[in-house]
Amino acid sequence: MIEHTSSVQVRYAETDMMGIVYHGSYLPWLEIGRTELLKANGIPYRDLEAQGFFLPVLEVNVKYHRSARYDDTVTILTRMAEKPSVRINLAYELRRGGELIATASTQHVFIDKSGRPVRPPESFTRRMDEVFG
Amino acid sequence: MIEHTSSVQVRYAETDMMGIVYHGSYLPWLEIGRTELLKANGIPYRDLEAQGFFLPVLEVNVKYHRSARYDDTVTILTRMAEKPSVRINLAYELRRGGELIATASTQHVFIDKSGRPVRPPESFTRRMDEVFG
Amino acid sequence: MIEHTSSVQVRYAETDMMGIVYHGSYLPWLEIGRTELLKANGIPYRDLEAQGFFLPVLEVNVKYHRSARYDDTVTILTRMAEKPSVRINLAYELRRGGELIATASTQHVFIDKSGRPVRPPESFTRRMDEVFG
Amino acid sequence: MIEHTSSVQVRYAETDMMGIVYHGSYLPWLEIGRTELLKANGIPYRDLEAQGFFLPVLEVNVKYHRSARYDDTVTILTRMAEKPSVRINLAYELRRGGELIATASTQHVFIDKSGRPVRPPESFTRRMDEVFG
Repeated sequence: MIEHTSSVQVRYAETDMMGIVYHGSYLPWLEIGRTELLKANGIPYRDLEAQGFFLPVLEVNVKYHRSARYDDTVTILTRMAEKPSVRINLAYELRRGGELIATASTQHVFIDKSGRPVRPPESFTRRMDEVFG
Repeated sequence: MIEHTSSVQVRYAETDMMGIVYHGSYLPWLEIGRTELLKANGIPYRDLEAQGFFLPVLEVNVKYHRSARYDDTVTILTRMAEKPSVRINLAYELRRGGELIATASTQHVFIDKSGRPVRPPESFTRRMDEVFG
Repeated sequence: MIEHTSSVQVRYAETDMMGIVYHGSYLPWLEIGRTELLKANGIPYRDLEAQGFFLPVLEVNVKYHRSARYDDTVTILTRMAEKPSVRINLAYELRRGGELIATASTQHVFIDKSGRPVRPPESFTRRMDEVFG
Repeated sequence: MIEHTSSVQVRYAETDMMGIVYHGSYLPWLEIGRTELLKANGIPYRDLEAQGFFLPVLEVNVKYHRSARYDDTVTILTRMAEKPSVRINLAYELRRGGELIATASTQHVFIDKSGRPVRPPESFTRRMDEVFG
């Protein structure tokens, strides 16, 4: 299992007229979670794209338990629970202090510049082998 | 069953460096779909909030089948398949021409200004009774 | 002089917790204004990028006179007042009904894929000659 | 003079299909700059709104010198050069490493819940007197 904890401070731009964080603003936070998880494992996403690998979102699911508010510090726990096959599954827990405010999951697949699914880059496969055996 | 078809033209601001629409940009489109469905049924969301009713998103799920691109015209078919009880379930199909590019679902509940779940406003309940019996 | 009028309906996603439209949400509207102006003059921006021409923003200025609100219909009058030399200057007036809510201006220059300033594409130059002589 | 330096790491969500940061993404960064400047001076914007004071943007100007890219660290130097009268003027310099990528300015005025211009809150006036005499 790989886990990584990231943190964001809620921006005014991320709120809506309901007075809380706009529900769509959570998606960039999940993205921060997974790119920091990759970076902490020696696989900066910036380098992946430079090498011609892209990792689009195939599916996203978010459950909103509590509302987040402007200026809150939100922690994002990102978890890869199992060795990825073709699909890469990630799970997320978002908290304000000890309070769970949202849970989420995303699915991904590596594609090349032309949009065709491809085998993951070697740096990724090697790291997955190290972690999951 | 209630259905409504909306349409958006992809904005440059909605793309990302992958050259396609950013996956998070679909959430405001779903919102356009459901607010136009409500409006077409005589329940403008603007009026609901003016009366103290809010309809936050409890859960969102999006499956991305094809990528959308800048300047594409995307149609959003929004469907309420069954009479809402406490939870309101909506399903969405996004198409470019005849091609299905994404499917999605959202769950909602009416709350008041203080964030407490409340019975739906009368205008909403009446319309649901008319449609679903 | 070239002018074009576009129209947007304010999205919930474009509001912030002040209860009005987030000031940054106006920038995508200006972009709609200028890309529709280009399209109406036979120069779709989509085609420009396909031909290797990009038209980034060098400078933007927005003056906010009145606040826009969710579900408002906002019209965007985009104007190219003079024949562009190297720099392309555009001016904008945003209205809700007859009421002026914001004025803006942007400056642009054509660049190629590598970011270098280039002469405008022929389709652009030809149209400018037609209009401004 | 009051100055404060903030820092952001460019999010994937902030890029567009030009492969660089979307020009509109800079506005939330300016907002981070000024809210951190206020917080560092003992005037958290969150508290201002809780007390019924709002500080909308009356005017924004951004000059883009260099493009910012995904994963870049961008520093935002925010400066209040002179004691605010009714209008509050802020200037910004955005850098990647030593390189200036953008300069900007914003103008603000305090308003109340109803949108009417009001005198600044005492905490603000007191701090301005301390700094500017």
